[in-house]
Amino acid sequence: MSQLIGTYPFTIDAYLTDFRGKATLPQMSSFILQVATKHAEERGFGYSAMTAQKKAWVLSRLVIEMFEYPQNDALIQVRTWVTGINKLFTERCVSFETPEGRRFGFARTIWAAIDMETRRPTHLTELDGLARYVCDEPVPIEGVRKIQPLKTTEPVGKFTVRYSDIDINGHLNSMKYIEHFIDMFDMDLFRHKDIYRFEIGYTNEAHFGSALRLYRQEESEGIYVLEMRKEDTLISSARVYWK
Amino acid sequence: MSQLIGTYPFTIDAYLTDFRGKATLPQMSSFILQVATKHAEERGFGYSAMTAQKKAWVLSRLVIEMFEYPQNDALIQVRTWVTGINKLFTERCVSFETPEGRRFGFARTIWAAIDMETRRPTHLTELDGLARYVCDEPVPIEGVRKIQPLKTTEPVGKFTVRYSDIDINGHLNSMKYIEHFIDMFDMDLFRHKDIYRFEIGYTNEAHFGSALRLYRQEESEGIYVLEMRKEDTLISSARVYWK
Repeated sequence: MSQLIGTYPFTIDAYLTDFRGKATLPQMSSFILQVATKHAEERGFGYSAMTAQKKAWVLSRLVIEMFEYPQNDALIQVRTWVTGINKLFTERCVSFETPEGRRFGFARTIWAAIDMETRRPTHLTELDGLARYVCDEPVPIEGVRKIQPLKTTEPVGKFTVRYSDIDINGHLNSMKYIEHFIDMFDMDLFRHKDIYRFEIGYTNEAHFGSALRLYRQEESEGIYVLEMRKEDTLISSARVYWK
Repeated sequence: MSQLIGTYPFTIDAYLTDFRGKATLPQMSSFILQVATKHAEERGFGYSAMTAQKKAWVLSRLVIEMFEYPQNDALIQVRTWVTGINKLFTERCVSFETPEGRRFGFARTIWAAIDMETRRPTHLTELDGLARYVCDEPVPIEGVRKIQPLKTTEPVGKFTVRYSDIDINGHLNSMKYIEHFIDMFDMDLFRHKDIYRFEIGYTNEAHFGSALRLYRQEESEGIYVLEMRKEDTLISSARVYWK
């Protein structure tokens, strides 16, 4: 497979949409993970190739901007390409398009590769083939902005990591962080507004049985910073932009 | 579309599997909902056709038997067909197969159609076209067995229904019941055993903000009855067979 950009069709199934009949943010992020997996696999640096080298891809940061959310039964195309690579990180971008090519959302994702035994980062420049796929297709959204630690010590929610939260690497699944974060908001917000931008940083891993606490602070009107902590350790932080 | 049986291919994406690299029970049930949606839609009695008549399909009971769970990267085929219809219910069956046609799991599902305004059941015999698709393809698993109400009043867990739990009909999503139920089990069970049969009855609807309690009782060795209640009202019950 030699094309730089991979294009994958999806249907927004009614049973996957929210109460408004719109695809959810975790659903859109699941498309991102699916196309990342397929694009990498088809080009020889996917899950199986990594496992054979005792390495695993780890999502480090993600930003999504949705100009609109697709409705149930919509056909969409999700395109993805690699935009950069350095010693420790590679950036992969994603566009969401109608079948006619109208772009209604974008994402930028930053990945590291870890050694599955030491759990330490490995050098991406040693990864055979990856550099060959770097592509200069532009992506018209800003990368993740720095998220300053919150000062609040009053949690607004909590949950315990269960079987369904855990992925094949034994950690809290990347999509589930997003699900737990957006579930901190009341239905009323979803009735009147949409999340048009969402940034998340995956700082530390969380495992089965971890008791996590959720924190929230409004940074400016309609913009919230969220945190997930295990005792005093930051697991993940996010910034949510409503409009 | 005139074939009675619909066949749909899926890939078990690594990011969807559990910590063992196996597809999860909620994932298998999501395939069931996806193929039910597609099969019905393609034959003129799907979500859009129902909405146009102000009706909605409601899943009433589901039983799944998995002889084995597919591993990540596996290609599978999911086949579905309608096996019966009476005034209030229709039965749809599902088989899970390898691309070579080896069957490794089955499901039977019972659906009702409700009037979206009155929320009362509507007569399925009035539904144009549905009866034409009834098919006598056999399904070699027993239907849902009666689940007697538990006597216990001591919950073993609880959760509040959030945005991500709610489907397009405004209720707790059918897949999410299953997720919440199987999350009542410890990881150790998943390390050593598999759920080979799962039965669930959807008794009452649950809405955003509902505080639900979870109950569990071992019926006989490896067989558990689970309940989800909102105060004294039974929302759903399930029976889980481990081996």
